[in-house]
Amino acid sequence: MKFHKILIANRGEIAVRIIRACRELGIATVAVYSEADRESLHVRLADEAYCIGPTLSKDSYLNLTNLMSVATLTECDAVHPGYGFLAENADFAEICESCNITFIGPSPDAITRMGDKSEAKRTMIAAGVPVIPGSDGIVEDMDEAIVIAREIGYPVIIKATAGGGGKGIRLAEDEESLIKQITAAQQEAQKAFGNGGVYLEKYLTSMKHVEVQIIADKHGNAVHLGERDCSVQRRRQKLVEEAPCPVLSPELREEMGAAAVRAAVAVNYSGAGTLEFLLGEDGQFYFMEMNTRIQVEHPVTEMVTGIDLIQEMISVAEGNPLSFRQDEVVINGWSMECRINAEDPERNFMPSPGKIDFYLPPGGPGVRVDSGAYPGYTISPYYDSMIAKLIVWAPTREQAIAKMKRALDEFAIEGIYTTIPFHMRLLNHETFVRGDFDIKFLEENEV
Amino acid sequence: MKFHKILIANRGEIAVRIIRACRELGIATVAVYSEADRESLHVRLADEAYCIGPTLSKDSYLNLTNLMSVATLTECDAVHPGYGFLAENADFAEICESCNITFIGPSPDAITRMGDKSEAKRTMIAAGVPVIPGSDGIVEDMDEAIVIAREIGYPVIIKATAGGGGKGIRLAEDEESLIKQITAAQQEAQKAFGNGGVYLEKYLTSMKHVEVQIIADKHGNAVHLGERDCSVQRRRQKLVEEAPCPVLSPELREEMGAAAVRAAVAVNYSGAGTLEFLLGEDGQFYFMEMNTRIQVEHPVTEMVTGIDLIQEMISVAEGNPLSFRQDEVVINGWSMECRINAEDPERNFMPSPGKIDFYLPPGGPGVRVDSGAYPGYTISPYYDSMIAKLIVWAPTREQAIAKMKRALDEFAIEGIYTTIPFHMRLLNHETFVRGDFDIKFLEENEV
Repeated sequence: MKFHKILIANRGEIAVRIIRACRELGIATVAVYSEADRESLHVRLADEAYCIGPTLSKDSYLNLTNLMSVATLTECDAVHPGYGFLAENADFAEICESCNITFIGPSPDAITRMGDKSEAKRTMIAAGVPVIPGSDGIVEDMDEAIVIAREIGYPVIIKATAGGGGKGIRLAEDEESLIKQITAAQQEAQKAFGNGGVYLEKYLTSMKHVEVQIIADKHGNAVHLGERDCSVQRRRQKLVEEAPCPVLSPELREEMGAAAVRAAVAVNYSGAGTLEFLLGEDGQFYFMEMNTRIQVEHPVTEMVTGIDLIQEMISVAEGNPLSFRQDEVVINGWSMECRINAEDPERNFMPSPGKIDFYLPPGGPGVRVDSGAYPGYTISPYYDSMIAKLIVWAPTREQAIAKMKRALDEFAIEGIYTTIPFHMRLLNHETFVRGDFDIKFLEENEV
Repeated sequence: MKFHKILIANRGEIAVRIIRACRELGIATVAVYSEADRESLHVRLADEAYCIGPTLSKDSYLNLTNLMSVATLTECDAVHPGYGFLAENADFAEICESCNITFIGPSPDAITRMGDKSEAKRTMIAAGVPVIPGSDGIVEDMDEAIVIAREIGYPVIIKATAGGGGKGIRLAEDEESLIKQITAAQQEAQKAFGNGGVYLEKYLTSMKHVEVQIIADKHGNAVHLGERDCSVQRRRQKLVEEAPCPVLSPELREEMGAAAVRAAVAVNYSGAGTLEFLLGEDGQFYFMEMNTRIQVEHPVTEMVTGIDLIQEMISVAEGNPLSFRQDEVVINGWSMECRINAEDPERNFMPSPGKIDFYLPPGGPGVRVDSGAYPGYTISPYYDSMIAKLIVWAPTREQAIAKMKRALDEFAIEGIYTTIPFHMRLLNHETFVRGDFDIKFLEENEV
């Protein structure tokens, strides 16, 4: 089956990215937009564009009825959800299928199984993928907690099963502390969530966030495309990503890649997906979660493999076998991505929406810009604050850093504050340059 | 020797390109500009910038005294000449050396030897590089002409040694015609140039312009980086270039590459250079000339090899050995470049200088833009009309064409006419798509 027309159920740079991929494949595109996004680049670049509702996402980009109406009326063969919004919504995938429109992504079942964190963990264990050691669900009583904690080793963290946002999380350094904290945690959880159930997990320190890109077709073939190091995070928001990971040995890359492929096969996965792992200094890695969609940082993988992930997603959704085998995936050189956000890094990354008066992205060899911005474009306060993804490629990490600094220096965005000055400082930070930073790097260092 | 500061004796996109390379290497840059170029991007991007004279090139970019004053006063270690202006001026290279400033390019001797067309031809013959068959200089009499013509085979062209601009050129299909035309050509040449000397050359038809990029260090190492097909020309101006050449076999690539390296070694070449050949349908190739500088179309070679030619030029000028061996040069995928000029293709490519009101270059994967333009920039009528080089990379030629069309379609330049519509039509032309076009393609076809 060859797609003739694809609806892009998204906005901003990822909508532009998908339109570009479709145009190169000779596939027509239908953009959708909220009232606030009338002047957006994705609206200008698509073959057709339709307003699907008011500014708030819930009324437009999350409006299943309006989305499906446009897809049906414009006779789209398929829908690409991008990331965020409905990208990991199994209902949306299901509705698409029931309307005979291909959802460009995995099956609703795979989305559901990976979306439920405890089922995902069970699936991973069954597939032989290492997970963070801990209790198998809620700990029933103190004796069980003590046995498990001895098994996994101190320190351990106690987490409320109904928790979230850091609430109900306690650290126990030894058995004495565990005994005290369990009771306190249960009481706190009961009070906060009406559910006193807690579970134990090994407390991991000095961990890197290393994720593996996979892609699978509908014929049972799954391959991995190497890893990305996304340890530079501020409040769990990734700010800089790179491929490969500066501390990974070829053997560990193989091992993590093989685990990621086993995970994909275990849920009969098709499409692009990412296995997120925590990687310790000792080379041990642990499954965190699987993202069943394309990710913001996919370009760094494209740059080091030469593979167009969006086009490959479309191809496998059409039912084609993967266009390459595992042994044809070669990691070449180094790539980095900086997320340029409309935020003021000098004022605690306060959002800085507004009109871009002057805009000139950097150019020249090894520089790629994925963006929905243009001169005169207004960054809306209603959606995420990303202006552009600045991606570079160079033969070595050192050269990639030099190129990124050159490109950041050239990037001209006037009229709003941006995170460019933050990125410049980060790229000059000795820990970043060394490459052995962990996920606490930005928490523990003044950048 | 490590350079600390480089003067860039050029303007426009190539000055920007060199500044980018220097910045990534940690080398400071000095820009120069004419009075008309005060607002140019290269002036904004360089670490220092100095006005070197009035608008006309002869008063500024060709003003040796002012250039050398700036280079000396700012304590530059080296000068990069770019292309055009003083790039192939042996005197300039010599003056630089005498001021103890490294000229980033070959020796004055190599420039001179390749600049003199008849000496270059003799040098190539001695190096075993095929040249266009013909008489060895002026033919003395009719008998000699007949012998030579029989040797090289008909048709032959008769050219006035003092000729130029197409004057004094005649075609002879056979011996009878040769006898008639020689006398006529001699008389015409005598009348037109006061010199009746004529020489013979084989008349070559259906030729492609295929050139080989070479780079050599000061230690006797020379390598080639594959070829570029530059057959899409209008009045000898290249408009589109690609790498590799769509009709070249790996064996022929090796053969032409080896010939190019022999040519470089023959003149003790150092730096980047290009051997321009005519390539016939039969696989025979003939030396036309050597350009002893970086060329406009160098990015397509960078895209398929992953090698930064400007940085490598700087490195070998510093005295370093080449950073790669011949067997490490791998041609990967396909690259194309379209020269986007400020010309109106609907009115015979009439120059269209003026202010760019809106400017948004294309982005996304596999797209590179080398340009000195920005929103609000005014294209001057005093220099060449190039606004930007749009370069793409993709795994195959078909994908590269699709990507170029996508990128051309996205490229927004408002306020002046550009050659974008011409490039769009060209990329849809079946002969171009087939890849077997020759240098007469644009002459003989309505595009």
